[in-house]
Amino acid sequence: MYSKMTWNNNMWFTGELDGHKIDIDASKDFKGQNKGPTPKGLLLIALMGCTGMDVVSLLEKMKVKIDSFYMDTQTDVTETHPKVFKDITLTYYFSGNLDNNINDIKKAINLSQEKYCGVSAMLKKNSNIIVKVMVNGKEVK
Amino acid sequence: MYSKMTWNNNMWFTGELDGHKIDIDASKDFKGQNKGPTPKGLLLIALMGCTGMDVVSLLEKMKVKIDSFYMDTQTDVTETHPKVFKDITLTYYFSGNLDNNINDIKKAINLSQEKYCGVSAMLKKNSNIIVKVMVNGKEVK
Repeated sequence: MYSKMTWNNNMWFTGELDGHKIDIDASKDFKGQNKGPTPKGLLLIALMGCTGMDVVSLLEKMKVKIDSFYMDTQTDVTETHPKVFKDITLTYYFSGNLDNNINDIKKAINLSQEKYCGVSAMLKKNSNIIVKVMVNGKEVK
Repeated sequence: MYSKMTWNNNMWFTGELDGHKIDIDASKDFKGQNKGPTPKGLLLIALMGCTGMDVVSLLEKMKVKIDSFYMDTQTDVTETHPKVFKDITLTYYFSGNLDNNINDIKKAINLSQEKYCGVSAMLKKNSNIIVKVMVNGKEVK
């Protein structure tokens, strides 16, 4: 896997990955021009993309049909350098006619978190990842 | 730090971070539509963005003037699940009238890698990061 990133000016960089361009910048409070997201937050996007793809693939194999699906993450960073993530809370939100598929959803998420998702496996070496699952607005345990 | 990611269809997701949207997708070989980069590669973009901002800031404080600056990363993933990065080779490339600033450049990179860069600190818990420095096309040791 290869990636390249070029400095433009100030805190603004442009990365190249898989033939796509990605702008990274600092906020205006930190000498940036806000031309893209901050680097550290990209780890959260990578985490959700990785596990999201696993879950969608697994639910498709299980013939579970979802109407909509999103995730969010919340974390804080340590006060001292290097500023790394503390615990990460990762919540999966599903909607659809899913009353008979709660166990399938939990199984798919568990397989992603414990077996397949490489980004989770890497970030877990630094942070505890707290997983929550919401189906049609209600948390499932 | 908060981020959200919404499933569109197939392997395509759209993330929201710092008010920016980021599309993530799989390649066409993996049921994707190539609407964005792959999740795992974003970790490399995050790594370069984080250390790149450190280095640019530190060199500015040291009054070192660079004409251009880019970085690249090369890594492989493990063969078994979860597929995580093996060693990451991170190379910094500078050009400019820098013959008298080689030690400043090495010092800035070292401070980023050892003290400031949170993304490096997190990824190092999984992977060895091998740093190389090129100035005007020649590797400096």
